[in-house]
Amino acid sequence: MSGPAPLGEWLRGTGPDAEVSICTRVRLARNVQGYRFPTRMTSEEAAEVDRFVCSRLTSAETGLDLSVVHLHDVPKIDRQVLIERHLISRELAGADRARSVAVDDDECISIMVNEEDHIRAQVFHSGFQVEATYRDALRIDEAVLRVIPIAFSEEFGFLTSCPTNTGTGMRISAMLHLPGLVWADDIERASNTAQKIHLAVRGLYGEGSRALGDFYQVSNQVTLGRSDEQIVEDVRVAVARIIAWEREVRAALLDGDARARTLDRVFRSLGVLQNARILTSDECLGCLSAVRFGVVQGLLPDLTVEQVNRVLMHAQPGHLQQFANAELTAVERDRRRADSVREILTRSHG
Amino acid sequence: MSGPAPLGEWLRGTGPDAEVSICTRVRLARNVQGYRFPTRMTSEEAAEVDRFVCSRLTSAETGLDLSVVHLHDVPKIDRQVLIERHLISRELAGADRARSVAVDDDECISIMVNEEDHIRAQVFHSGFQVEATYRDALRIDEAVLRVIPIAFSEEFGFLTSCPTNTGTGMRISAMLHLPGLVWADDIERASNTAQKIHLAVRGLYGEGSRALGDFYQVSNQVTLGRSDEQIVEDVRVAVARIIAWEREVRAALLDGDARARTLDRVFRSLGVLQNARILTSDECLGCLSAVRFGVVQGLLPDLTVEQVNRVLMHAQPGHLQQFANAELTAVERDRRRADSVREILTRSHG
Repeated sequence: MSGPAPLGEWLRGTGPDAEVSICTRVRLARNVQGYRFPTRMTSEEAAEVDRFVCSRLTSAETGLDLSVVHLHDVPKIDRQVLIERHLISRELAGADRARSVAVDDDECISIMVNEEDHIRAQVFHSGFQVEATYRDALRIDEAVLRVIPIAFSEEFGFLTSCPTNTGTGMRISAMLHLPGLVWADDIERASNTAQKIHLAVRGLYGEGSRALGDFYQVSNQVTLGRSDEQIVEDVRVAVARIIAWEREVRAALLDGDARARTLDRVFRSLGVLQNARILTSDECLGCLSAVRFGVVQGLLPDLTVEQVNRVLMHAQPGHLQQFANAELTAVERDRRRADSVREILTRSHG
Repeated sequence: MSGPAPLGEWLRGTGPDAEVSICTRVRLARNVQGYRFPTRMTSEEAAEVDRFVCSRLTSAETGLDLSVVHLHDVPKIDRQVLIERHLISRELAGADRARSVAVDDDECISIMVNEEDHIRAQVFHSGFQVEATYRDALRIDEAVLRVIPIAFSEEFGFLTSCPTNTGTGMRISAMLHLPGLVWADDIERASNTAQKIHLAVRGLYGEGSRALGDFYQVSNQVTLGRSDEQIVEDVRVAVARIIAWEREVRAALLDGDARARTLDRVFRSLGVLQNARILTSDECLGCLSAVRFGVVQGLLPDLTVEQVNRVLMHAQPGHLQQFANAELTAVERDRRRADSVREILTRSHG
C-alpha cells in the first residue's frame, strides 16, 4: 500500500447530519465454503484461505479495485495506523495466523481476511446515511459472492463464527459525537433507551473500548431473524432519534445562562489544544470533543471540521509514531502529540 | 482625586531585578504629638487629627504635591480600588472614624491618615531598590516632620500604636514574585530561612493575606533597637539572597527534562487567560503567575510585563466594578474578569 490517504472516508466530515454523525458503517460477516472458521483453522488452512480470498478480491471480476496489505509483512506501528483508521480491528492486528486487509483508495471499503470470520467487509460513508451505505454494502457483497463460494444455509442464512452474526451477517453502525448528551448528563438515559430497542452502544473502537472524546458507536445487536431491510430501518429510525435528542440538548446548552458555561468550556478546550506542550491522548480527545462541538455549532469560525478530524486522526499513537518513523515512549508521544495538534490547529486553512 | 493613573508605581514593571521583585516599599509609622492613637480616639479627636494632618500634608511647605481623598466621602467600590492599588490598607478602608489618604500623581507616595497610627507614609519604587526607596522615604519623613509635630521619645524613638513599630517606625518590604520557589516546592524552606533572620513573609496584601499568584511580601519584623541603616542593609542582603535563589530555581526549571513541563505550564496558563469566558480571581492569579514567569524569562515574546501587570490590576474585584460602574455579583465578576483579561492579553501592544 502506498501510504494511506490523508483522511479516510469515515473522517471526511461531510454528509447528512455530519455535525452529530461522524460516519455510517455497514459490516458484513462472510465465510468461505469448505473451511473451518479462522479461530479453529490450522496455520496452513489460514494461509490457504488468506491466499485464495486475497487473489479473488483483487481479480478484475469484482470491479472493486482493492489493494491488499498482508498483515504478517507489516510492522507493528503500521498495523496500529490501520486500526486507528478503522480499516482493521485490534483482533485482526494482533492475531498470529495469516491475515490481510483489502482496501480501496478512498478508504470507503475495507475487507478483512481471517478476522473472526474469513471475510469481514466494511463500507464507510461519512455523515449519517444508512441506506446509501447499505446499498454500497450490497454491491460489495454481490462482488464477493461472484468470486468466492460463501457458506450459506437455507435455514440460518449466512454462517458465521459467532452466532450473533448468523443470518444476514450484517451490522450497521453510526459513529456519533454526543457531547451534548454527555455534558447534560443524559448519555446514560440515551444509551439505555437505545439498548431497549436492541441497539448496542459502544466506544469508537468497538466492543470494550471506552467512549473517549464523547464519541459513540451505535449499532444493531442481533442479525438472526431480521431481514436486511428491517435492520436498516430499525437503525435508521433509532439513530435519527438519538441525533434529534443530541440536537435538542445542544440548543439548550447554547441558550440562556448555560451559554456562558458552554462557551467557556469550548474556548478553554481550544486554549489547551493550541497551547499545551505535553498532551495525553485522553485529554486531547476530551478537548477535541468540545472544539468539534464549537466548530459545528459555529462558535469557532476560524476552525474547520477538517482540522478537527486531522487532529483526531494524527494525534493517535500509531500515526504519531509512523510520522516520527520510530517507536516512541508515552512521554515522547505526549510531547509529539502536543506539537502536532498545535501545528494542525494554528495552521491557516485554505 | 481625578481617577487613578493607569498603573501605579508599584506595578510599573521596571527597575532592578524586576523579573523577580515587583516593587520595594518603605513604610513609616508616625503619630501627632498630644493626641491619643487612632484606635483609642473619640470620633471628634479623629476628625480633628484628620483635618489637621491633611491640611498640613497639602501645604506648599512639604514640597510633595499630594492630593487628599477623604475616605468617608468615597463609595465602597472606590475604596476597594484604592486597596487594590496598594494606596490604602483594608483596615483603613473599613474603619469608621474620620480617615484619609494623601497620594501623589504617580502613586509613588501614599500617606494614610488615622490608620493604626495617625500617619502611615508609604513610598513605592518598582523593582528591587531598597536604598533608593529608603532615601525617598527620608525625604518624605523630613517633609512631614517639617509641618507636623511628631511624637518622639529620646529613649524609644518614634512612638507608635503597636510596640513592634516603635523605634524607627519603619518597615521595608519587597513584593516578590516567586513562582520558581513555589513550583519547585522550595518556598517553605525559603520562607523559614527568611524568618530565621527576622524577616516576615506574607501574601501580597499584608498580614493574613494568602500568597495568591505566587506573590509574596518580604519585610523586616521588628524596628526597635535597630537603626534605619541596619534595617535597610538587613533587608537588602536577605532579599537579594531570596532573589538569587529564585533565579537558580528558574534556571533549573528551564533546563533539561523540566523545560517541557515548565513550557507546558506557562503556555497552558496563557491558553486559559486568552480563552476562558468565566474566570475566578484565584485561577486568574495562578495563571497570571505562570504567564508573568513566561514573559520575564523570554518565553512569550508577544507579551509584555506591562500587559501582565494590567491584568493583575484590572482583574481585581474593585477595578472590575469601577469599570462597570456598578456592584457586580461574583458570577458577573467572573465573566467580566474573563472578558477584561482576554481584551488586555490579545490587544496588540505598541
